[in-house]
Amino acid sequence: MPQLLRVQNFSVSRDGIGAGEGQSLENPFGHAVDPGKLLSWAGATASWPGRTDSGGSRGLDDYFTRDFTHNIGAEIMGRNKFSPHRGPWKDHEWRGWWGDEPPFHTPVFVMTHHERPSFTLSDTTFHFVGGDPESVLARAREAAGGKDVRLGGGVTTVREFLDADLVDTLHVAVSPVELGSGLRLWESPDELLDRFHLEVVPSPSGVTHHLFWRR
Amino acid sequence: MPQLLRVQNFSVSRDGIGAGEGQSLENPFGHAVDPGKLLSWAGATASWPGRTDSGGSRGLDDYFTRDFTHNIGAEIMGRNKFSPHRGPWKDHEWRGWWGDEPPFHTPVFVMTHHERPSFTLSDTTFHFVGGDPESVLARAREAAGGKDVRLGGGVTTVREFLDADLVDTLHVAVSPVELGSGLRLWESPDELLDRFHLEVVPSPSGVTHHLFWRR
Repeated sequence: MPQLLRVQNFSVSRDGIGAGEGQSLENPFGHAVDPGKLLSWAGATASWPGRTDSGGSRGLDDYFTRDFTHNIGAEIMGRNKFSPHRGPWKDHEWRGWWGDEPPFHTPVFVMTHHERPSFTLSDTTFHFVGGDPESVLARAREAAGGKDVRLGGGVTTVREFLDADLVDTLHVAVSPVELGSGLRLWESPDELLDRFHLEVVPSPSGVTHHLFWRR
Repeated sequence: MPQLLRVQNFSVSRDGIGAGEGQSLENPFGHAVDPGKLLSWAGATASWPGRTDSGGSRGLDDYFTRDFTHNIGAEIMGRNKFSPHRGPWKDHEWRGWWGDEPPFHTPVFVMTHHERPSFTLSDTTFHFVGGDPESVLARAREAAGGKDVRLGGGVTTVREFLDADLVDTLHVAVSPVELGSGLRLWESPDELLDRFHLEVVPSPSGVTHHLFWRR
């Protein structure tokens, strides 16, 4: 089977915005973007990685959250998904937003121009890599041991890999909110129809799942 | 996490029929039921276990077929899903419909009143067990090593476990065909609403996914 590059559970507003400008420690999704509004559909499911009780919906949305780790052997993420800091690392104390048990459970490749030693938290190892999308994907594929690679975001990183035509499948959950400004994944999902099949699936939760796969 | 009993990718007609009467070697789904009509939605997906090429849809239906093995540690099936024969085993030559590589990859518990030794094909071991649904489920749970148990069907077996109130989640794909007569899962999905949440999700392929989970 081919090793796919997959975007999963990526959440944007009805106007295509996935994060605001001005990311900070206090506002990981930037100004004017309440991640709760974009991600509440996922947090309501039984399989949401952050869930510690046995409740939650097992309806349609749960199929998406429980597919998050399915056949995934590595993740690629942008520097700004990993950290609110910019420029050279002042120190190595920041170890991501996710505490001692990150939800990835695989090698993670953080794209950055600034070198930093790899480190491991539980069963997730973070590597810091430069280079273009092709070369980062080659490293992630090798680390994935035959499994697929997840492209974790943020918006800028997903756009970069789409522009390089490296994405095989893309699942975007469009939330019923308008944000007006911020980092934009698309003006319209139709922009991708020259290269991808698209199924649009409204969920009872209010989000609309957009499922793209390569033609 | 609790060990769930899950029915997955169970396909019925619009009038609730999952198999015909008169099952035989030539007609595993019985008279008047062309399994192609009930199962074509699944066969068209990239993750259908029988697929040997790299094609197939990666849209909504593929999330259901690729969830088939997810966190499943054992399967329970009825005698008639395993074999077209009835009554005592004449010999032990029949080893299921699935060839040398059954798609289960776990222990499988075949419910039957007639004893037969266990046997293994590739990474699937078939056990033949009597007793009521509760006791069979207890054995399957123990074999599942903490994972969930799949209830594989057929119709009669699913009904038996529903009547005993042992099913935790139930995914039924309703195909746009009318069969008129045969083995019936329900007169209407509404029959289960006293015990289950239900989400009804139409797929672009024409089937309508019915997702039930315990209230």
